[in-house]
Amino acid sequence: MKSVKQTLQVELGDRSYPIYIGPAILDNSSLYQRHITGKQVLVVTNETVAPLYLQRLLAALDGFDLSHVILPDGEQYKTLDVWGQIIDELLARRFSRNCTLIALGGGVIGDMTGFAAASYQRGVDFIQVPTTLLSQVDSSVGGKTGVNHLLGKNMIGAFHQPKCVIADTASLNTLDDRQLSSGIAEVVKYGLIGDLPFFEWLEDNVSKLLSRDTSALVYAIARSCQDKADIVSADECEVGQRALLNLGHTFGHAIETGMGYGKWLHGDAVAAGMAIAAKLSCRLNWMDREAERRVVKLLKQAQLPVDPPLALSPERMVSLMSVDKKVMDGNLRLVLLKGIGDALITDQFETLDIVQTLNEYTQ
Amino acid sequence: MKSVKQTLQVELGDRSYPIYIGPAILDNSSLYQRHITGKQVLVVTNETVAPLYLQRLLAALDGFDLSHVILPDGEQYKTLDVWGQIIDELLARRFSRNCTLIALGGGVIGDMTGFAAASYQRGVDFIQVPTTLLSQVDSSVGGKTGVNHLLGKNMIGAFHQPKCVIADTASLNTLDDRQLSSGIAEVVKYGLIGDLPFFEWLEDNVSKLLSRDTSALVYAIARSCQDKADIVSADECEVGQRALLNLGHTFGHAIETGMGYGKWLHGDAVAAGMAIAAKLSCRLNWMDREAERRVVKLLKQAQLPVDPPLALSPERMVSLMSVDKKVMDGNLRLVLLKGIGDALITDQFETLDIVQTLNEYTQ
Repeated sequence: MKSVKQTLQVELGDRSYPIYIGPAILDNSSLYQRHITGKQVLVVTNETVAPLYLQRLLAALDGFDLSHVILPDGEQYKTLDVWGQIIDELLARRFSRNCTLIALGGGVIGDMTGFAAASYQRGVDFIQVPTTLLSQVDSSVGGKTGVNHLLGKNMIGAFHQPKCVIADTASLNTLDDRQLSSGIAEVVKYGLIGDLPFFEWLEDNVSKLLSRDTSALVYAIARSCQDKADIVSADECEVGQRALLNLGHTFGHAIETGMGYGKWLHGDAVAAGMAIAAKLSCRLNWMDREAERRVVKLLKQAQLPVDPPLALSPERMVSLMSVDKKVMDGNLRLVLLKGIGDALITDQFETLDIVQTLNEYTQ
Repeated sequence: MKSVKQTLQVELGDRSYPIYIGPAILDNSSLYQRHITGKQVLVVTNETVAPLYLQRLLAALDGFDLSHVILPDGEQYKTLDVWGQIIDELLARRFSRNCTLIALGGGVIGDMTGFAAASYQRGVDFIQVPTTLLSQVDSSVGGKTGVNHLLGKNMIGAFHQPKCVIADTASLNTLDDRQLSSGIAEVVKYGLIGDLPFFEWLEDNVSKLLSRDTSALVYAIARSCQDKADIVSADECEVGQRALLNLGHTFGHAIETGMGYGKWLHGDAVAAGMAIAAKLSCRLNWMDREAERRVVKLLKQAQLPVDPPLALSPERMVSLMSVDKKVMDGNLRLVLLKGIGDALITDQFETLDIVQTLNEYTQ
């Protein structure tokens, strides 16, 4: 296979770091040696990923003082209790401030490991090795870490940047089709927010992503990370435009919370959320129906859901949305669309507009 | 009473903040209004402090959307579980990212509230209202927040700076004598580390502190905070000289952990720790016995313990010290003394030196 590797640099002053993207780089020893300063390394992974990649990674880390933790797999385990298992292992092994944590897995593992690294002894190093498309394009950039609370997603956490991200496209070969599609939802999001040419590329190439074409994957991951990095570099702590990245997420979080963590894949919920956002944008006359049709068509081609679950009434959805941390100050703001590649943050709508938009799905 | 107020500025770039020191400023509304940007305010306090000051503080905050949490009192409650009660209240009240937490109490309340502020929605504002001498001179400066773990003190936490600190010297009138002395231990520490003139002032004025003379208290608090701020400003994340502030703490933490959290007051353990550090410094010929005698004499005048507990064998002390996070990388370093006002960080000693020093107490 020809080399199709790419390296991006996320620019955040003295917290800048590289993202390495390419096939079969998960066990590239030199990448780890470049970014680990101490001797002690704790690899955190889950029951699904461990049988596939843990031994390869540990072999690549030969020579370090190694330990590992294998957590249960799923969003429902992204809790303080499970996170505590990482802390317990660090303390049981007497790991110092100079240790490095490595997150081997999807977004849940990345978020929990990152928050453990942020909190252990008030902050130690960590490296992300995302093994799902979703985590490669989403968690790789931004430094958001955390765990869920019964009353809301990601309510406890920290901003903590990794030392590097190693995104191995070959690890996507072991993803099931639903997980792959779920990742494509976030890829589509970057096109929708501010990158029309990328959206058009996706309209032409989504089938290549579904068939796991390496070149297409590397391109889509790199472009998504670049789009996200451009937004995050300008607004690291989400006081302004970074909130654009929440397109589809306020609806999506309501679906995830309402159905119970783990029932809907995150990307599936975001896909439905983006479709709802497009429909609401049309109702408010900010976008035309033709654009909405293109959004829905691409999401469907990616094998993603575009309707909210029937089990959640519009009123329940709105109630759940009001708990989301982006809107908890009582001022419900949403990311909506003026067009494909042209998103905005707005509170210029009524709750009734949301209810009526959701009612369209049940007619 | 004549005005003896002082205001210090802790310089940390865009995280700089003022420390207000003086009598009866705990319910000065204008100080709060100056530093609270949103509407939602959660006051966190404990069962001991609440009956004394909570209503006065809440009255001073009239007009804000107020809530409060009353936690049990004591180092043994500085746990993730108790910390979770703060998070639960924030979520139950649907507090937004724009909220402010106020820590009303001693160091335990300050550390837990600060870590809740650091972690809730990845970071919200907080204000420290320390009501013990220990917390006024210690937790006011430095931004260290966190909770204990069964396997070690402050193992989980974050660096998170307050918006301001309001140190009311009148609140020290309700401290019992042991708590007051415990605070003086940290005051003595600043003299020992690098401020000989302050140590000499303490030799002359410790009785005024014990009798709660307002002017003496304001002076000692301000000078301690200034000494600490000078060290912290130069090394916010403790990669170098900030570790000097741990004088007496590695021995002290071993005593606290070994005896069970809450059995020894923190300042008492630090006092004994400083006396041990002085004795070890003499054994290593870095300091003369006359200086050790002055250290021990001042600590005794302040009604502080200067011996380790008999219940802990020297071997057990050393074992507990090796778990302390300052020494967990296997390289045991201690803060020792070349003289009064002249501390150093060193690993130039043998474990046997520590054991022999501790054995001196049992002969």
